[in-house]
Amino acid sequence: MEMNFNQHISGQFNADLEAIRSHMMSMGGLVERQVANAIEAICNGDTRIADDVIRREDDVDKMEVAIDRECTQILVRRQPAASDLRMVLAVSRVVRDLERMGDEASKIAIHTLEVSDAKNPQLCQQAMRYMGTEVVKMIAGALDAFARHDVDGAIEVVRNDKLVDKQYASALRELITYMMEDPRSIGQAISILWILRAIERIGDHARNISEQVIYLVSGADVRHSSLTEIEEQAHKEAKE
Amino acid sequence: MEMNFNQHISGQFNADLEAIRSHMMSMGGLVERQVANAIEAICNGDTRIADDVIRREDDVDKMEVAIDRECTQILVRRQPAASDLRMVLAVSRVVRDLERMGDEASKIAIHTLEVSDAKNPQLCQQAMRYMGTEVVKMIAGALDAFARHDVDGAIEVVRNDKLVDKQYASALRELITYMMEDPRSIGQAISILWILRAIERIGDHARNISEQVIYLVSGADVRHSSLTEIEEQAHKEAKE
Repeated sequence: MEMNFNQHISGQFNADLEAIRSHMMSMGGLVERQVANAIEAICNGDTRIADDVIRREDDVDKMEVAIDRECTQILVRRQPAASDLRMVLAVSRVVRDLERMGDEASKIAIHTLEVSDAKNPQLCQQAMRYMGTEVVKMIAGALDAFARHDVDGAIEVVRNDKLVDKQYASALRELITYMMEDPRSIGQAISILWILRAIERIGDHARNISEQVIYLVSGADVRHSSLTEIEEQAHKEAKE
Repeated sequence: MEMNFNQHISGQFNADLEAIRSHMMSMGGLVERQVANAIEAICNGDTRIADDVIRREDDVDKMEVAIDRECTQILVRRQPAASDLRMVLAVSRVVRDLERMGDEASKIAIHTLEVSDAKNPQLCQQAMRYMGTEVVKMIAGALDAFARHDVDGAIEVVRNDKLVDKQYASALRELITYMMEDPRSIGQAISILWILRAIERIGDHARNISEQVIYLVSGADVRHSSLTEIEEQAHKEAKE
């Protein structure tokens, strides 16, 4: 009898863990679409899609609060240890990064509305499209790595974040040159500046999610580590 | 005997909770100084202080990782419930916001070095000084509210964050006007733009800490709530 009872408890526990993981993945899917749509809106000057992104931000926020509450309840009721505890903590950190990405997507959409009738619609188009496509792939890659406990996939995302940072720096230089040449476009250029910045921040959050994959698998906290340090830590076995 | 044993366990538990709380306050003190120094560096063009801020950022990062590890260990060993669990979760969220503030302080210091020989040292001086002084007070206020479980103090910080946001918007307008009038100063103006942005973000993080005070006291998650909603939630009693 007691064994059955324990099996029942442990079955329920696994179901709870599976639930937060799967809700996190759904939230991740929504945020990935929000970011992809925001990039499409700015690159095609599509204000209808931008409106849609702004409207859905609330859903992202609600998912964060709901999943975080589920995580707290598991901590209270199940008192998880070792890798189960790491899963709960990692999920609660990942949803925070997803929520911030949702925020950034919404900022991109708001600035899209500001520049929708701008004088030079081509300004930094290429950089935004390139960086945008890259960060959407990074979100998918980070979530995929989380789902599959795939540290190599996670490291790939960290590596791509460095590329996005470089593209960002080069796009900023292009933008500043343009502002100096055509001061009347400074209003538009500042909006583009915030958009580039938002895309770059989304890349940072995808990197943060990848760091949680490494925490999940190895137990190592690599949040302030360099790429080389992360690579060293990533393949160590978790101690417990 | 058993009672003594339990008292011992519970005494140790309280000591653990007190330790993370007190380490968080020390980290808060360091971050408050980092921000205050960064503001002083930019307002007085003091590159020596700026260098010092950049050098100390590493200490802030290390404190975050150490305190977060302590929090995880309490979750594993003590399995806290109710208000104790809220304390552990709140501390681990607060240290994340403190670390981000430290990052922003360091960004301000880096941009201070960029503009140290700028053409117009007065540009947005007043706004930076005013907003800077305000956010330093907000950090102190939020930490103080946390220490004293003071929801009214926390709400005051949320209210001040709205003022800082307004000052930020008005400083940005000033800056854009200046850029249009003197395009050769755009490089300097963009550095100032990032500094204003960093100060505004520090205010947001102080607000986040205040939201954790309300969570700590009432159990309510007010992260996506308006000021009015926060005021309503703040004085409800915690359910457990």
